[in-house]
Amino acid sequence: MTRLWDRGEALDDAVLRLTTDRDPELDLELVPWDCLGSAAHARMLESIGILTAIELGDIERVLGEIATEAGANDFAISREQEDCHTAIENRLTQSLGDTGRKIHTGRSRNDQVLVALRLWGRGMCRRQLEALLDVVDRLLDLGDEHARTSFPGHTHTRQAMPTTLGHHFAAWAENLLDTVPWLQLTFRHLNRSPSGSASGFGVALPLDRQLVSDLLGFDAPQVNTLAVQNDRGKSEYLALAAASAVATDLGRLSCDLLWFSSDELGFVGLPETVTTGSSLMPQKRNPDVLELIRAGATRLRSLQAEVGATYGPLPAGYHRDLQLTKEPFLRGMQSLVDMLVALRPVLTGLTVDVERCRAAVLPSSGATDAALAAVAEGVPFRQAYHDAPAAEGEVAELWRARTHLGAPGSLTLDLQRSALTEARRWLEDHRPDIDPALRHIHRP
Amino acid sequence: MTRLWDRGEALDDAVLRLTTDRDPELDLELVPWDCLGSAAHARMLESIGILTAIELGDIERVLGEIATEAGANDFAISREQEDCHTAIENRLTQSLGDTGRKIHTGRSRNDQVLVALRLWGRGMCRRQLEALLDVVDRLLDLGDEHARTSFPGHTHTRQAMPTTLGHHFAAWAENLLDTVPWLQLTFRHLNRSPSGSASGFGVALPLDRQLVSDLLGFDAPQVNTLAVQNDRGKSEYLALAAASAVATDLGRLSCDLLWFSSDELGFVGLPETVTTGSSLMPQKRNPDVLELIRAGATRLRSLQAEVGATYGPLPAGYHRDLQLTKEPFLRGMQSLVDMLVALRPVLTGLTVDVERCRAAVLPSSGATDAALAAVAEGVPFRQAYHDAPAAEGEVAELWRARTHLGAPGSLTLDLQRSALTEARRWLEDHRPDIDPALRHIHRP
Amino acid sequence: MTRLWDRGEALDDAVLRLTTDRDPELDLELVPWDCLGSAAHARMLESIGILTAIELGDIERVLGEIATEAGANDFAISREQEDCHTAIENRLTQSLGDTGRKIHTGRSRNDQVLVALRLWGRGMCRRQLEALLDVVDRLLDLGDEHARTSFPGHTHTRQAMPTTLGHHFAAWAENLLDTVPWLQLTFRHLNRSPSGSASGFGVALPLDRQLVSDLLGFDAPQVNTLAVQNDRGKSEYLALAAASAVATDLGRLSCDLLWFSSDELGFVGLPETVTTGSSLMPQKRNPDVLELIRAGATRLRSLQAEVGATYGPLPAGYHRDLQLTKEPFLRGMQSLVDMLVALRPVLTGLTVDVERCRAAVLPSSGATDAALAAVAEGVPFRQAYHDAPAAEGEVAELWRARTHLGAPGSLTLDLQRSALTEARRWLEDHRPDIDPALRHIHRP
Amino acid sequence: MTRLWDRGEALDDAVLRLTTDRDPELDLELVPWDCLGSAAHARMLESIGILTAIELGDIERVLGEIATEAGANDFAISREQEDCHTAIENRLTQSLGDTGRKIHTGRSRNDQVLVALRLWGRGMCRRQLEALLDVVDRLLDLGDEHARTSFPGHTHTRQAMPTTLGHHFAAWAENLLDTVPWLQLTFRHLNRSPSGSASGFGVALPLDRQLVSDLLGFDAPQVNTLAVQNDRGKSEYLALAAASAVATDLGRLSCDLLWFSSDELGFVGLPETVTTGSSLMPQKRNPDVLELIRAGATRLRSLQAEVGATYGPLPAGYHRDLQLTKEPFLRGMQSLVDMLVALRPVLTGLTVDVERCRAAVLPSSGATDAALAAVAEGVPFRQAYHDAPAAEGEVAELWRARTHLGAPGSLTLDLQRSALTEARRWLEDHRPDIDPALRHIHRP
Repeated sequence: MTRLWDRGEALDDAVLRLTTDRDPELDLELVPWDCLGSAAHARMLESIGILTAIELGDIERVLGEIATEAGANDFAISREQEDCHTAIENRLTQSLGDTGRKIHTGRSRNDQVLVALRLWGRGMCRRQLEALLDVVDRLLDLGDEHARTSFPGHTHTRQAMPTTLGHHFAAWAENLLDTVPWLQLTFRHLNRSPSGSASGFGVALPLDRQLVSDLLGFDAPQVNTLAVQNDRGKSEYLALAAASAVATDLGRLSCDLLWFSSDELGFVGLPETVTTGSSLMPQKRNPDVLELIRAGATRLRSLQAEVGATYGPLPAGYHRDLQLTKEPFLRGMQSLVDMLVALRPVLTGLTVDVERCRAAVLPSSGATDAALAAVAEGVPFRQAYHDAPAAEGEVAELWRARTHLGAPGSLTLDLQRSALTEARRWLEDHRPDIDPALRHIHRP
Repeated sequence: MTRLWDRGEALDDAVLRLTTDRDPELDLELVPWDCLGSAAHARMLESIGILTAIELGDIERVLGEIATEAGANDFAISREQEDCHTAIENRLTQSLGDTGRKIHTGRSRNDQVLVALRLWGRGMCRRQLEALLDVVDRLLDLGDEHARTSFPGHTHTRQAMPTTLGHHFAAWAENLLDTVPWLQLTFRHLNRSPSGSASGFGVALPLDRQLVSDLLGFDAPQVNTLAVQNDRGKSEYLALAAASAVATDLGRLSCDLLWFSSDELGFVGLPETVTTGSSLMPQKRNPDVLELIRAGATRLRSLQAEVGATYGPLPAGYHRDLQLTKEPFLRGMQSLVDMLVALRPVLTGLTVDVERCRAAVLPSSGATDAALAAVAEGVPFRQAYHDAPAAEGEVAELWRARTHLGAPGSLTLDLQRSALTEARRWLEDHRPDIDPALRHIHRP
Repeated sequence: MTRLWDRGEALDDAVLRLTTDRDPELDLELVPWDCLGSAAHARMLESIGILTAIELGDIERVLGEIATEAGANDFAISREQEDCHTAIENRLTQSLGDTGRKIHTGRSRNDQVLVALRLWGRGMCRRQLEALLDVVDRLLDLGDEHARTSFPGHTHTRQAMPTTLGHHFAAWAENLLDTVPWLQLTFRHLNRSPSGSASGFGVALPLDRQLVSDLLGFDAPQVNTLAVQNDRGKSEYLALAAASAVATDLGRLSCDLLWFSSDELGFVGLPETVTTGSSLMPQKRNPDVLELIRAGATRLRSLQAEVGATYGPLPAGYHRDLQLTKEPFLRGMQSLVDMLVALRPVLTGLTVDVERCRAAVLPSSGATDAALAAVAEGVPFRQAYHDAPAAEGEVAELWRARTHLGAPGSLTLDLQRSALTEARRWLEDHRPDIDPALRHIHRP
Repeated sequence: MTRLWDRGEALDDAVLRLTTDRDPELDLELVPWDCLGSAAHARMLESIGILTAIELGDIERVLGEIATEAGANDFAISREQEDCHTAIENRLTQSLGDTGRKIHTGRSRNDQVLVALRLWGRGMCRRQLEALLDVVDRLLDLGDEHARTSFPGHTHTRQAMPTTLGHHFAAWAENLLDTVPWLQLTFRHLNRSPSGSASGFGVALPLDRQLVSDLLGFDAPQVNTLAVQNDRGKSEYLALAAASAVATDLGRLSCDLLWFSSDELGFVGLPETVTTGSSLMPQKRNPDVLELIRAGATRLRSLQAEVGATYGPLPAGYHRDLQLTKEPFLRGMQSLVDMLVALRPVLTGLTVDVERCRAAVLPSSGATDAALAAVAEGVPFRQAYHDAPAAEGEVAELWRARTHLGAPGSLTLDLQRSALTEARRWLEDHRPDIDPALRHIHRP
């Protein structure tokens, strides 16, 4: 029992390898979700009289077994089977005979895989948000702890004006909070049921698409069945766009920390537990984790572009090219969680050399404050700029006089804190509500 | 009077060319918006006592003149001036002497350009939405008109199942409606005031950032001043992500139409007013507009990737690299409007060869409906699939029996229509509210 | 025995997962090449007195064992070991004690992995060339077979002028031959020895870099040791640039065949052995292989861009970001071979419907030939173009009168044939000459 | 007189804007080259009897006038005319009546533009090589000057081993020399004549394609006329691949210099003539030129990817999408020259703080040399590594003991110098040999 469409024709071996690619391996991730989606489909088939209650019970039992095996890394997909959908249907037929042969009634692998990807994706999107908010939380703590740690503010990799290290951390906290609505919109885009679109043209059966949507806790079914297929690639593109924007903020923060923790600057230190060593140079402790977050952000942007380039030139409906959007989606979405989780211990263990931070501030970086002091005396700004008077007092503390909204002397972290709280409440309020009857199949 | 920072040093000519690049040309687009932002900044400076009421009046008058000249293509920026900000300050100083020298008090070109880009961008985002909804409107009409035009549904560029042409058009309408929340989120992301962040570290003046935000009709100021600078590149990246997803749907629809209107298929025809000719081949009428929408979508995705690659590897704060995000943003955002506007007459003038559509449907594409008829007789689906009975009746009409939600026999266009209405209402409700006192400077 | 640099510090688990990523799996591909490179390094160490002849013999024996196990999928790399280099050194030390602890003398994993990647890469580049020339060969045969098969030539997906199917196939043969010098240059770029650069700054030992280069059959050592490290990422970028240009030609040829073999056009037919079926629609035979070559070309271009974006923003020398160039390089290079090999049976089994090809030629596509006939009568071309006389005779045969160099009436396939022969001779002449003493370790 | 294919149909205005895009502006760059190509085409038409000698003389005279006007920025292309080809034919017809109407005999804009792009491109490729070799020359001088300037060698942005600044500069010289064969291959790929391919299917006239190729100094004509069209996009893709690899090396060198010249490190200083100022901060001197080389490299890689994404999904032959490969090619190729030329004064004016370089070397970076000293005493390397003895003597000078090929103690600049000489000789030997009779039209 192998390919669903097999009628005995030989398939060229090189063609088989090209067409299956890494699917047998990648699809392992989707098995429990596909079981869940299949169970909902089966319930619906029962509700419209295609399956009997007994058949439904049998199918749900075997699907539960498969999901459990998959959870224990105990379910395999062979190259001959092509994908998880085939492996699951084969197993159902093997276990249940004709009952198994009924599971695919009224659906296509085209909508089946979409259901699994959406279930997986919306969960991953929630995990991204959770991990993101933890990082924001830690950044706000750092903002608070170092709200008075004088620090050289840079533009163009050159000292610009004195600031505080807390202002720097709080900035990234705000930038990351700005991405929350994008991840939330990803969630909403993904949280719609594609089930029942079949190959894009529906089927001649009275499918109850709303029921499947409700069982799986989706907000609603997508409507036009071809639109569902047209959304393949695009959902992934948009989800990766949002994820890559988050990752890019993380990558840039990592750039900062790489530079700040260099031997030459030494503003911050990385705990040993997050650095690695060299095979040749005994003294090295390398910030690989920061470099891989930087590079991981680049990869995530690349994966988004790859998905766009893959689905972009295709006419409407399903094409096998879309298969190649699966791996970038799975890996890209997961990688953001991995980056966020790995950044956590870096931020938690970070040490700050407060004295070195302050000592690094150059007197020349007080020039702007001095020019604006002249403005207060009535000199037109451009004149004061060209006169360029010298700064007075302790230059490293000049940030204290900059107290308008959001300046280093006025962090207003409470605004970010309440945005964080609100985002956490949203997560509470948007737990996908899988029907209790299905939770035994797979509980995310 | 040229560069703001000029103190008489020579600048290497090759360096000047590299650093100014296409800015003098590109910035012409931003001049009116920069005048508007500068006027709001001046009002705020007056409110905190940096400018007198008379100075403010003078400045607003000259800014109004500049904006008017720019609207009439009568304002130039020289390479020596580098950018519009310099050209405008130079003109103010030229006209008003010391009063002009005060305009830059408390700001940097870094936040000044952000204000102009946000004002420009939120307006462009609205134009995208308007033009998009017009296209959706037309697609829904086509969906309605051809709800009963039998048509060969394809997957893999092969006939799959009979559908209707209306189902095809309605699918794209729904896909485009799906992008509306992404454009709306772009609008919200852009519609925040960066003013007062200066170089990222604020200034030692009691700037009233809320006032500037209110005057310009922004939702609120962004808070942390360094976060404002960190958002450069990222705003553009996210805006282009949303825009490119819309463009990609348009490009794919264009692929469909290119194929459907080919000599060989002839399902639809393009009006002469939207086709072009060949310099060599007298008989040719070429669908360049569709090809350029397809290629324009590719370009828009590329511009997004380019912005991501440019700002992605940078540490916090401003770097001159960010200059190179301006052109992709300006061109990319505009190009989506251009595509939508050019697609309009194609969809309006499209002719449909109803008979040829129907005649193209192959009998073999009825196989699935036939197999499902056997299922209704109690045959397990996979068995029926392998038996593959022949379809009965008029194959081209088989779509009529597919009547569940969203299938060709049940388009439910009312759902899309009401989404369209709601989106139009949103546009009404989100007109940026520029303070009446500033509307004489530039009225979008 | 795990990490080479391990001194007992704990490593955060999330950090470990992020830093090892897919290396333990990916590096399996490199194990035999790393054994070969290590054996050459050991021979050189013996030649400068670091190893005794007996130690060298022991090391070579164990390296041979490892390579053999790897060839039999019997060598594993644990996550704790990080990579193949560590796994191999651990095994040597486990088997040989202090002798194993000497193998890393004078090298770093930084140059070690480069040696393995170059050995792997130059071999893969040769396989690309071999597979490419086989495809060219078949295309030239098709060019010859259908040199007189009238066919509608298209521009803009519209009929332009009558041509022959042979002209079409011969075009792609020539385009693919144009890529041969790019693959050859890749080979030359890769076929240089990085060994002895260590971390980029050499080592204080009298390494004989020329000897290692000679043993491994490289053309010469790269010189400056930091330049070697700077070439990481860049070699891969250039190799993937060349490979992706080849793949793109294949993808475009696949587009042609997808369209030509559509139900509607039916110019060519695909053998069943290279098509797949649908899980839902009994009648479908899908051209997945062509779609996946199209999408595979897109992926290969994306991988090149990903490598460029990864190494591009880095300062000189090694950074852990470069780790993420390995997978795109390994997968991208391999994927081109896979595409070429899978295309072969498609081209071999392709059927042509000669009559349908001829019948498809539209009379209107003779307009250009008719206009040029008027030119022969003395009418200025632009005048003739606007007069647009009707074509005379059998339009489908008009290509016969176009006989200048390279036109459909004059294919001159001998030029391509001799380029093919020359390219095959180059392959003969550029077999890497691994020292006989090392061939027992791994024979590519 | 406007569009060549105009027969009086109105063209929708939005469609016109979309289809002409920036062509009227961009094509100004191509006008002289198109005149040159057109003159060669006219000579060939005369040789086969389509034009009389008098007509040829007239045409060449007017083409010379146009080229001269274009050189003086005195030739304009209107939006109605679409492109330079139309503007030039219109002008010929305006000046010469029926003679002008003959110029387009036997060609299409499809091959006409290819000729112009190839002529422009091969010249630009030579300019890239010339400017590149000048930069290499300066880097080798810097390598020589600082061959004994002790300097901290870094990996992972952390001090690794002591090296010299000269070793660092010499590395980039070698890396850039490695790109020379890629630029030379670009030249060879571009230096083939596309003339006579018409729309891809030739024409029914006895065109002498070899003659045109010889007149324009191409190596040879491309053969298959459809292959010529298939090469559109691909030539540009490959040319930009090579150019972007060069640019990326420049961008990475710029990263080094940005960091080395930071306030905190201060290893090198930038001359005032290559830095710019801030509009707000009086003390700033910003390294914009380095940032824009870094960002310019990113843009160049993006442009290559954009070209690939544009031509990649197209079937054989011409499609209007290819129009959008023109701007990335023109801008990308030019931008590399601009970067190289702007980098020159930076490298020439660079100051080095030799003492600060030496003082920055950390004692801990001597650990590897110390471990290898223990190896010389017979300790197995991995043992010595774990013992990690302290370095003895002056750590900053440890590089002197690393004297194998290419290590800091043995730069072997003579190898790079002779590669430079050879590359310059190649440029001498590959000056395109335009026929003397045509040199009056346009002399590059």
